[in-house]
Order: sequence, then C-alpha cells, then structure tokens
Amino acid sequence: MLVIGELINGMYKAVARAIKEKDAAAIKEIALKQVKAGATALDVNCGPASKDQVSDLPWLVETIQKATDTLLVLDSSKPAAIAAGLAVCKKPAMINSTTADSEKMDALIPLAKKYNARLIGLALSSKGIPRNKDERIELAAQIVQRCVEEGFPTSNLYLDPIVMPVNVSQQQLVDILETIKDLKLIADPAAKTIVGLSNISQGTKQRSIINRTFLVMALYQGLDAAIMDPLDADLMDAMATAELILNKDIYCESFLKGRRQKDRA
Amino acid sequence: MLVIGELINGMYKAVARAIKEKDAAAIKEIALKQVKAGATALDVNCGPASKDQVSDLPWLVETIQKATDTLLVLDSSKPAAIAAGLAVCKKPAMINSTTADSEKMDALIPLAKKYNARLIGLALSSKGIPRNKDERIELAAQIVQRCVEEGFPTSNLYLDPIVMPVNVSQQQLVDILETIKDLKLIADPAAKTIVGLSNISQGTKQRSIINRTFLVMALYQGLDAAIMDPLDADLMDAMATAELILNKDIYCESFLKGRRQKDRA
Repeated sequence: MLVIGELINGMYKAVARAIKEKDAAAIKEIALKQVKAGATALDVNCGPASKDQVSDLPWLVETIQKATDTLLVLDSSKPAAIAAGLAVCKKPAMINSTTADSEKMDALIPLAKKYNARLIGLALSSKGIPRNKDERIELAAQIVQRCVEEGFPTSNLYLDPIVMPVNVSQQQLVDILETIKDLKLIADPAAKTIVGLSNISQGTKQRSIINRTFLVMALYQGLDAAIMDPLDADLMDAMATAELILNKDIYCESFLKGRRQKDRA
Repeated sequence: MLVIGELINGMYKAVARAIKEKDAAAIKEIALKQVKAGATALDVNCGPASKDQVSDLPWLVETIQKATDTLLVLDSSKPAAIAAGLAVCKKPAMINSTTADSEKMDALIPLAKKYNARLIGLALSSKGIPRNKDERIELAAQIVQRCVEEGFPTSNLYLDPIVMPVNVSQQQLVDILETIKDLKLIADPAAKTIVGLSNISQGTKQRSIINRTFLVMALYQGLDAAIMDPLDADLMDAMATAELILNKDIYCESFLKGRRQKDRA
C-alpha cells in the first residue's frame, strides 16, 4: 500500500511557521521523520495560512527534495500552485486532487499528463458530497471518462470515495467500503483507490483505533493508498498485519518490521 | 457479535488442576472474569488431562452455572460428554462441535434438537482439513443438509470455516474470509458463522495483533461469533470499533464501553 504521510500541511502550526519563515530544516525534519516511519509518499500542502501558494508549494517541493527522493503528492485547491510545484519536481509526482467538476478536470488532467504525474480524483463535485455508493461511482466515472478522453492512463488515477466521519455519517461507512471495491471495476486498466484516512475519525476522541480499524477493512476491500499519519505506530502495525493476512507480505516473525521499540503486539 | 470466552479449557494448567481437584472457586473466578470483560458466552472444555469427561464436563457446567447464567458452549470431541453436560444445563446451550462426518452428525444433531441447543458445525471431516473455499462450502453444506433432514433449525447452526495459522497457511486466509460470507448463503433461514479466532495466530509471536486484525476483516464479512480471549482488551476494542464502523453500534464517545482503565485509543 502507498502510505502518504499527511504531516507536511500548513494547517499544523509548526508547518505554517516553517513555511512563513522559510525554515527548510524544520520541513526536512518532518519529511524524514515520516519516511523513516514507513511513509512511501509525502503529501505537501501549504495550508490555509499561505498567502502565496504558487511560490510556497514549489519552495516546499524543493526543500523536501533536498532531504529525500520519496514520491511527492502536491496538495492544493489551486491548479496554478500545483503547476508551479510540478515544474520543480525532479521526478514524477502525484496531484491531490481533481474533483468531478469540469474546470478542475480541464486544468489538472492535462497537467498530470504533461508531467507524467499520478492524479487523485475525488468522488465529489461542487454540487456537494455524494450520499451513497451510486453517487460516488457516478462522480468517479465522470473523472475516468475525462481521463480516457484526454489520453491520461487510468492506471495512474487514484479514485477517492470520500470518507465521512463516523460520528457524522456512520450509516454511510459500509457503503463507502463497498465503493472502494467497485471503484476498481469502472476503468480499464483499473484505476487505483485512495482514502484520506483521518477523515473517518474527525471530531472523535478515539482517533487512532477508528483510523486503523477502518484501514484494515479498506485494505480488505483492495485499497491501494491512504493519506495518513505514518508516525502512528499502531496504525502502521495494523496495516502491516492486514497485508500479512491478505498474503501481500510473507510471514516472518519480524513482519512488523522493527517499527516498534519492543514487541507490543 | 457473540463473544465466546475460551479460557475455561483444561489445556491450561490452572484449569486442569481446578478440574482435577474440583476447585469450584477457581473455575467460577475464570468464568466471571471473562463475563466481566465482555464475554457473552463461555466455552467449557475439560481438556486432554481429563480422564472422565462424562463426569468432568457436567461438573464444570454446574459449577459455572452457580456463578453466571451466561450461555455455555459445551466443547468436547466425545458426544457422551456433551450429552451429560446438556443434561445439567439450566438453559439452552451450544454444542462445540460436529464435523461433517456422519457418526458425529448422527450423535450431535439429535442432541442439539432435543435440548434446543445451538450447534457449531465445522467445515471439516475425517478426510482432512479443507484446502479451499469450495471444499469448505461443500463440507458445511453436508452439515446443513443433515440439519434440514433432521428438522434442526439452521438459524441455530453456527458454521466454522476452519481458520488456519497465518504462518502455516497464509495463502488460504483470504479464501477463508470469503468463505465466511458465502457460508451465510447456503441455508434458509441463514446459518450463523463462527471462528476459533486464536487459531489464526497459533505459533506466532504477535498473537494479539494478528487475532484482532483478522477479526476486523471477519466482522466485515459478517461473522456472527468467535471463540476468543475476552481478557485481551485490544481485541475487545477492535471488535467494538469494527461494530461501530459497520453501524451495528451507535457512535458515542464512550463506545469502547469503559473496558479500558484509560483511553488508550
């Protein structure tokens, strides 16, 4: 599974400060900490405090690239910022994200194609959040269709069913889990699937156990990637164990990969 | 989910000693500890050291009944011991278990019917352990068929796909998880499903995390019952969280039900 570390995000005060003061060392440290913990990609988001994402996002990319060559996931609602970030990426990146809205797809699919980037497609539009699996599949299918029209390879498309918080939309979660499986059937070659994992526990007091329990179910459904907190050792262990049970990693006594200081299993 | 506590089993030294010395207090303590931790049923197994299960099993039943009225699951390979145990049960119990072998079904299905007991049916026969989903379903279907012939209600039948250890049969686990879902389709009214959860981690050094990760996936597949260790707080919490995500328990901040001393989530 692609583990996309979520911690380089300007919504966190320390990151917002580092961006404002151009504190490269602080950003590099957060990048390396996540990679060391098992992140195989890093989300890069300037956050709401950034006044100029078109310059802040490329600065973040260049800063992180000096510390690690891990896959970068450029996360912005502004296509111009994504474009500026892609222009300085040393290797193919990932775009986070297009919705099913035409103006977003018009801007981002060509960019993804130009830079050979992977693209996250949210089952979401300006009309609002989908209410059930059918609406999610329909929105995702609109993105798939546009990718095919534009000649963008659907194997580089990561479809996100939009995860809702358990304390808000509990009755939707089974539907969302089933959507993960079905999203893999609507494109040929198959698109990948992704979730913003932490959304599931937004506003709850038991975030880690809710996150990891949902992740285990999502992996069972074939999830390919998650934007998540790689520093949550319990979450990383749950992921490793799920991959073991799903026969994606061969059993050995050290399958938890020494992430823990001691065996807390 | 039916949580069947597995700790009253003569394979544990303390239990074997208590049975041998007819130490009722020790047995009652293990029973109550499991119920307090959330067990909604108790497995009762004399274990290999018992020289006379036909008297030891009823003694265990009578002893436990003095402490709790929780559902009892009479666990023995000897139908005569099961019969003796059922004869002293104050309320309907559960039989653990029949295989798909005729002599077992001939003995146990009429007993289950006579005592209005639930019956665990293992997808197993004297020919050996099934190698795939088809063989599991076939064996389970043989038990279902015999129940129908005997007029035993399939809604009281708990089918066990036979869980294999991850370090022995890793490539079978996805198949076993899929079997759980399919087992619910082979009888009308539907049979229930059950696993002997601890089997999955037999011989491994990370038993708890393997058990709870598998349980979360099995619950997603619709599992109805598990024979497991209710004193494993992480396991019980994983179960509670899975039931939350599956919308079987309504979200509230205290959904972990105060089983933990503090919020370790």
